Amino acid sequence: MAKSKYTYVRDFEREERLLPSTWLVVRIDGQGFTGFTSKHEFTKPNDIRALHLMNRAAKVVMESMVEIVLAYGESDEYSFVFSKKAKAYDRRASKLTTLLVSKFTAAYVFYWREFFPATPLQFPPAFDGRVVAYPSDRIMRDYLCWRQADCHINNMYNTCFWLLVNQGGLSQRDAEKRLNGTLSRDKHELLFSEFGVNYNNEQEIFKKGSVLVREQVPIDLVDKDGNSVQRQKMVVQIQHCDIIGDAFWREHPEILGEKA
Amino acid sequence: MAKSKYTYVRDFEREERLLPSTWLVVRIDGQGFTGFTSKHEFTKPNDIRALHLMNRAAKVVMESMVEIVLAYGESDEYSFVFSKKAKAYDRRASKLTTLLVSKFTAAYVFYWREFFPATPLQFPPAFDGRVVAYPSDRIMRDYLCWRQADCHINNMYNTCFWLLVNQGGLSQRDAEKRLNGTLSRDKHELLFSEFGVNYNNEQEIFKKGSVLVREQVPIDLVDKDGNSVQRQKMVVQIQHCDIIGDAFWREHPEILGEKA
Amino acid sequence: MAKSKYTYVRDFEREERLLPSTWLVVRIDGQGFTGFTSKHEFTKPNDIRALHLMNRAAKVVMESMVEIVLAYGESDEYSFVFSKKAKAYDRRASKLTTLLVSKFTAAYVFYWREFFPATPLQFPPAFDGRVVAYPSDRIMRDYLCWRQADCHINNMYNTCFWLLVNQGGLSQRDAEKRLNGTLSRDKHELLFSEFGVNYNNEQEIFKKGSVLVREQVPIDLVDKDGNSVQRQKMVVQIQHCDIIGDAFWREHPEILGEKA
Amino acid sequence: MAKSKYTYVRDFEREERLLPSTWLVVRIDGQGFTGFTSKHEFTKPNDIRALHLMNRAAKVVMESMVEIVLAYGESDEYSFVFSKKAKAYDRRASKLTTLLVSKFTAAYVFYWREFFPATPLQFPPAFDGRVVAYPSDRIMRDYLCWRQADCHINNMYNTCFWLLVNQGGLSQRDAEKRLNGTLSRDKHELLFSEFGVNYNNEQEIFKKGSVLVREQVPIDLVDKDGNSVQRQKMVVQIQHCDIIGDAFWREHPEILGEKA
Repeated sequence: MAKSKYTYVRDFEREERLLPSTWLVVRIDGQGFTGFTSKHEFTKPNDIRALHLMNRAAKVVMESMVEIVLAYGESDEYSFVFSKKAKAYDRRASKLTTLLVSKFTAAYVFYWREFFPATPLQFPPAFDGRVVAYPSDRIMRDYLCWRQADCHINNMYNTCFWLLVNQGGLSQRDAEKRLNGTLSRDKHELLFSEFGVNYNNEQEIFKKGSVLVREQVPIDLVDKDGNSVQRQKMVVQIQHCDIIGDAFWREHPEILGEKA
Repeated sequence: MAKSKYTYVRDFEREERLLPSTWLVVRIDGQGFTGFTSKHEFTKPNDIRALHLMNRAAKVVMESMVEIVLAYGESDEYSFVFSKKAKAYDRRASKLTTLLVSKFTAAYVFYWREFFPATPLQFPPAFDGRVVAYPSDRIMRDYLCWRQADCHINNMYNTCFWLLVNQGGLSQRDAEKRLNGTLSRDKHELLFSEFGVNYNNEQEIFKKGSVLVREQVPIDLVDKDGNSVQRQKMVVQIQHCDIIGDAFWREHPEILGEKA
Repeated sequence: MAKSKYTYVRDFEREERLLPSTWLVVRIDGQGFTGFTSKHEFTKPNDIRALHLMNRAAKVVMESMVEIVLAYGESDEYSFVFSKKAKAYDRRASKLTTLLVSKFTAAYVFYWREFFPATPLQFPPAFDGRVVAYPSDRIMRDYLCWRQADCHINNMYNTCFWLLVNQGGLSQRDAEKRLNGTLSRDKHELLFSEFGVNYNNEQEIFKKGSVLVREQVPIDLVDKDGNSVQRQKMVVQIQHCDIIGDAFWREHPEILGEKA
Repeated sequence: MAKSKYTYVRDFEREERLLPSTWLVVRIDGQGFTGFTSKHEFTKPNDIRALHLMNRAAKVVMESMVEIVLAYGESDEYSFVFSKKAKAYDRRASKLTTLLVSKFTAAYVFYWREFFPATPLQFPPAFDGRVVAYPSDRIMRDYLCWRQADCHINNMYNTCFWLLVNQGGLSQRDAEKRLNGTLSRDKHELLFSEFGVNYNNEQEIFKKGSVLVREQVPIDLVDKDGNSVQRQKMVVQIQHCDIIGDAFWREHPEILGEKA
């Protein structure tokens, strides 16, 4: 930037550098998505195209920021977990959050047509973002448990709600009343007895959300002598698995920085 | 959000609320735009399509956030000035910056085709953002002076540089050497004597950047009886004027909260 | 500090530098002073010795930090106003607050015996402190109005309360009940009709608190030739005047940085 | 606090709550102690009275804040380690630091006469303070290693320096030159060959500093029937031991929150 007698205004800038050796989680959230999904006629309770678009945008983000070790998405939100050792942008909160949100948003608009070929984007969407520092592995994992439990609870509720409305003929208000105070097993029962739906058979992406991790995959290359060779490459992979239990973490010891 | 035993992780969230009664300025900046502009073959030193696209995106932002009283853009950056009294999102830094950056980015990608009909977007761009609080009118105005002075200094340099390269046949390195240590009047002289260019006649949008303010404009409506009527409406207007001197501020007393 | 392989732990230090060009107000407050005043048998509702000791400690602080332009004290609290231009300790919040609190506390204990010659200090007292930035002269003045109004309201209440208890023979509980819901004029009336006390005649230090400002005072010196000469010197002066109205500020234009 | 139309100024208050589940370390430091120690004729390189006074003040602090699990002092500084689970004052940075500094300072002045019976306090001393959050046990321990290594390095240097000056007849400047660039073993050799001093025999409090921990000690009581009984009580104990190695931590597993 060019210097001038006005440059003193930079003294007013403040930068928050996030505590070293803590897990940094940036969560982004669709802003005003009730209106956005309605305007673009998203399927209820889940629009598979929209979820795949979210995953596509998240992949762009994760591929561009190598210190992200895991990402988790559900509905119109996505969480990105940076390694405890992450040094990007000197761990400055505003740089990390704004760049990540910008990359995600740009990718969402950029790839819209791939996932909604028949539905033109009516107006630009927006996401907000925040960053939180978690001091231990356990608390960072509990953060992810929190989001996956949220996915599960909301999806079960929404599955019941929209069946009651779309197939059961209830008004939205009556569906809400009907579900008020019900427990998990009541909802399982309702789905099965009234609509013949076994919740356990619902798609994993709806029940578990989406998990992005880096995995080594074999890729076929041709070397300089023209021979086919296989190399290992780290690639961002999408899964729809449980991340609350220990199994996932045992299978991916590198996320917590442990030797395999 | 659904409650669970993991909800305690919310206690780790921290929110910075910016000091009340201060001007808030959010500045966004293109990230890695050297590569982006080269890939999309932007005209040097200024690409008028790109500047109009920046202005279009800034207008979307300003129309969606009513507490922005002025915006100023040059090159691949834009500054948005929120009123001292702004209360949006409880003046939380992360909400204000991430949402604004997200809206801007989304609009930039969304409107790309309008301004670059012959140049498909190759990959999604990204912008970062930051917010600074300025405690007095004078300092906020000095911030804007800083940016407009920056625009002027950079544009004069770039105008010389690219003429030396494109018309003068110099390498980029030699052009840089040639300009090293030159003052403003040297550059005026160089432009005029070597290329017959009178810098004062350059386009105002290049020399001054772009200023967005809200102004009352008359609009023609048809009332319920079918008669044509004229009403006043606040509309975001784009100008390319000086904002360093007092004239602009006298013409827009409402920006500083003074009676007209 | 000596260097070692452990020095990396300094990277975890965070420093908040307070916004430039804002008034900084550090307020300190006695901690657990209900117990402290009771143990040392302070006179109720006001102990003039204790107020003078507070003023003495505040004077030590103000004399040691030249950027403090005004201090205001009442009861067991004191507010110190730093100039908008203050640069002490790079405006770091923790340095400013901890040093000021430490100086005040040390002086309070150090000078105790001067003001309580017959009452040995039983145990060390403690004060907490905080700093707040105020962006305009008006808001800084409103801060001081807030504290002086607080002094007035509390003192009138306490004057009534302790007269009801000490002379009126009421229990503390009954005195509280009696005053519940009373307005200012009710308290004036109560004081006058029941105890013959005209509140307006109460000591100014009780009604208005204490104001410390720097003023030029003439001092007599002897010059090198042995002649008596008078010089002007800036000295911290204690007053018990109104700081809510404009008169005080007109008399001390230098506080707001205006020419006299 | 009494309410008034000025109460809005409270909206400008900002409170930093320190990240949960992190170790909080408050370190206080004597301000301007070169002048203070010279004015009060402290013995060089170490004044045992002054160290014991520091320890006394630290004990007051530790006894009044039960979430402090360990304190470490050397020279004119002291570090207080709060448990990861500490909740005092909602982990607000300014409350924790100012109160701790105030308590320490008050105790330092209060107990001065016990440790310096023949040296009246000339003027009140001052300490500053800061708080740092450390996310893991290892990093918190490294913080303490940093301070104890600092104590060791400085003490060895100062022991040599003051022997060269006081017994060796060197000027302070020459003593500094003489020590410039020397390693630890050079200083050991210098002490032994020139002054017959075996550094290892120096007092532990000088070489290691002071460590305050809570330990169960048996105390003798008389029960209601007049019989002597022994009870266990947690008492703050002062040690001068190594805290860099593992031995100390194995002996005090409760500090890290582990079962004994």
